[in-house]
Amino acid sequence: MDFSVIGLSDVVEDLVDKLKTGRLMALYFIGSTRTSTIPGLSIAGATPELTLYTPACDVEYLVYGKPKSFDVIPVTPEGIPTPAVITRACINLCNVPYAIVDAGSAIEPKIPHIALPSKRVGDPINTGKAMPYEVAKALYDEARTLAHTLRGVDVYMIGESIPGGTTTTLGILSALSYEAWGKVSSAAPTNPHDLKEKVVREGLEKSGLRAEEARQDPIRAVSTLGDPVHVSMAGFLHGALENKAKVVLAGGTQMASVIAIAKHMNVDLKNSVVIATTRWITSDKSSSLVALVKAIAPSIPIVSINLDFSEAPYEGLRCYEKGYVKEGVGAGGTTFIAHVSTGKGVRDLEKAIYEEYGRLTEKK
Amino acid sequence: MDFSVIGLSDVVEDLVDKLKTGRLMALYFIGSTRTSTIPGLSIAGATPELTLYTPACDVEYLVYGKPKSFDVIPVTPEGIPTPAVITRACINLCNVPYAIVDAGSAIEPKIPHIALPSKRVGDPINTGKAMPYEVAKALYDEARTLAHTLRGVDVYMIGESIPGGTTTTLGILSALSYEAWGKVSSAAPTNPHDLKEKVVREGLEKSGLRAEEARQDPIRAVSTLGDPVHVSMAGFLHGALENKAKVVLAGGTQMASVIAIAKHMNVDLKNSVVIATTRWITSDKSSSLVALVKAIAPSIPIVSINLDFSEAPYEGLRCYEKGYVKEGVGAGGTTFIAHVSTGKGVRDLEKAIYEEYGRLTEKK
Repeated sequence: MDFSVIGLSDVVEDLVDKLKTGRLMALYFIGSTRTSTIPGLSIAGATPELTLYTPACDVEYLVYGKPKSFDVIPVTPEGIPTPAVITRACINLCNVPYAIVDAGSAIEPKIPHIALPSKRVGDPINTGKAMPYEVAKALYDEARTLAHTLRGVDVYMIGESIPGGTTTTLGILSALSYEAWGKVSSAAPTNPHDLKEKVVREGLEKSGLRAEEARQDPIRAVSTLGDPVHVSMAGFLHGALENKAKVVLAGGTQMASVIAIAKHMNVDLKNSVVIATTRWITSDKSSSLVALVKAIAPSIPIVSINLDFSEAPYEGLRCYEKGYVKEGVGAGGTTFIAHVSTGKGVRDLEKAIYEEYGRLTEKK
Repeated sequence: MDFSVIGLSDVVEDLVDKLKTGRLMALYFIGSTRTSTIPGLSIAGATPELTLYTPACDVEYLVYGKPKSFDVIPVTPEGIPTPAVITRACINLCNVPYAIVDAGSAIEPKIPHIALPSKRVGDPINTGKAMPYEVAKALYDEARTLAHTLRGVDVYMIGESIPGGTTTTLGILSALSYEAWGKVSSAAPTNPHDLKEKVVREGLEKSGLRAEEARQDPIRAVSTLGDPVHVSMAGFLHGALENKAKVVLAGGTQMASVIAIAKHMNVDLKNSVVIATTRWITSDKSSSLVALVKAIAPSIPIVSINLDFSEAPYEGLRCYEKGYVKEGVGAGGTTFIAHVSTGKGVRDLEKAIYEEYGRLTEKK
């Protein structure tokens, strides 16, 4: 089976029809939060400081096949490559137009990209002051406007690259009083739940934000415990649904904060939104996307694409089966739309991913 | 008649079919050249210095219905409004997705926009040093890459907002040794040909560039006597044609330098490129788009959309019939695609433009 569905399958069937015949567009939102530089929190970079450059390098590599800002593609401290390898292999198999949206990357990516005028790196959320309220609100509005100008599309797929994004997800969800402790994912095989909880509890306390205030105005949750990417994706989601389009949220547990922000902005999420991610996320024992979605918006189904790297000819990819990386840069969602729009089976897509990885490593 | 065709009509018929049923996308390229601040050269702003802010304000107004960086929409020294009024009224009538591309605006537009990483304001071309060669080359390449990522489109329409753009057109064409003296257009009823010629001859002399060098490498013409916008549009045109799409160049005589750059980059311009502009350009006695295109790429037809503001209820629009403004921000091309894609006659489109103008003036 190429993918499995958790939740309402008719919504996914409807989406699959649209993916086969409709007009598609993929957007990858990038941004940074200095939360990712807290030691031990994120392995989306060779060192905590380097995590700030991962988003720009990810999308430079996505477009050009190699980063421009640095010499090497983003890796974990163990040298395991960015999931953008999956994304690049799959997006190149289909003719889907795509664009990069910079919501606040620490460095400007050296590729043509959509800039949100209020783009800004988020501050560490243990301060309880992730970004000014006006900035968070503006990012939401700008991304919503962006969707309006990029109209005439039947299905948008939106993905993310933001190291530290699962911790800000925990922050946003906790500020909105969802029970999310221990449920967000990690790119590491051993999920540093205790550290994430400590960071979020510190931020929550310092912010003094009350849950009912946050639920009435989720921009407050973002400005205290959030980041630039999730609020921008939520704004884009809002605008895309106003365009009467379907939206594929391409990501793991981070998508929970995107739907939570949109929900509390009173966006109707029924029938038109699907989360598409990898099997490494949905089968992860150290997190629960399913539980989060159930608590926030149970009508949103989850598509789990059955990528399996256990037979991969490269150690760096076989590590995915040991719990490394799991998801990112819309890897799962991009594999899903490549599968449906081209009709290629996931085994064929895996081959293309192995080839892309081979090309990368040979280059060195 | 809603529009007339000068040149190969079968290319236009083919385009019209694609505009009716295909996937369209409009892009508006903005940028600045300090050439526009030479007194007497450009009236695309209330003062020579203000012309630097016109591109950002044009596209902010296009998206939001009012500028964000300044309080008022761009006007000529006489108070005649930007042609973006036409563009906004027409783009809002059709469901065509659109985006702004910043190739080097003096101020960053306060709307979501595509940034080319090498974006840069051009220096006055009477110096013979408009921008470093590497920048001009990078802009071309980046815009070409942008077209590749925004693939899956049948017809791209690309327009411009760059005050001083007819003078840089004269510069680029002269560097490439096309006989263009007295042939470029102006937003003023009295075209300052002598001043433009003086500026260009000064730049040519200082640059020391030989025509055969420029014809072999048109990026040299751009780096000495050009601007950031035309080279970016040429690069995008190149990439769009590699996508096997049709391209509507939405503009007046400035489109001559776009096709000249592309031609000398060895891009095959046959059968897939159309220039679409207003009757005010094609009937202008003080310039000749037809002669320029004939000299550069005679296979490219010109569509002249028959907008007529002589019955307009506003003086600011009736001035177009006296030779003011004429074209800009893709006004003619956007009217053309709105006409073909919606089936609305040009008289109806004029009504929408009058309404948009009324909305603007009432607001004040």
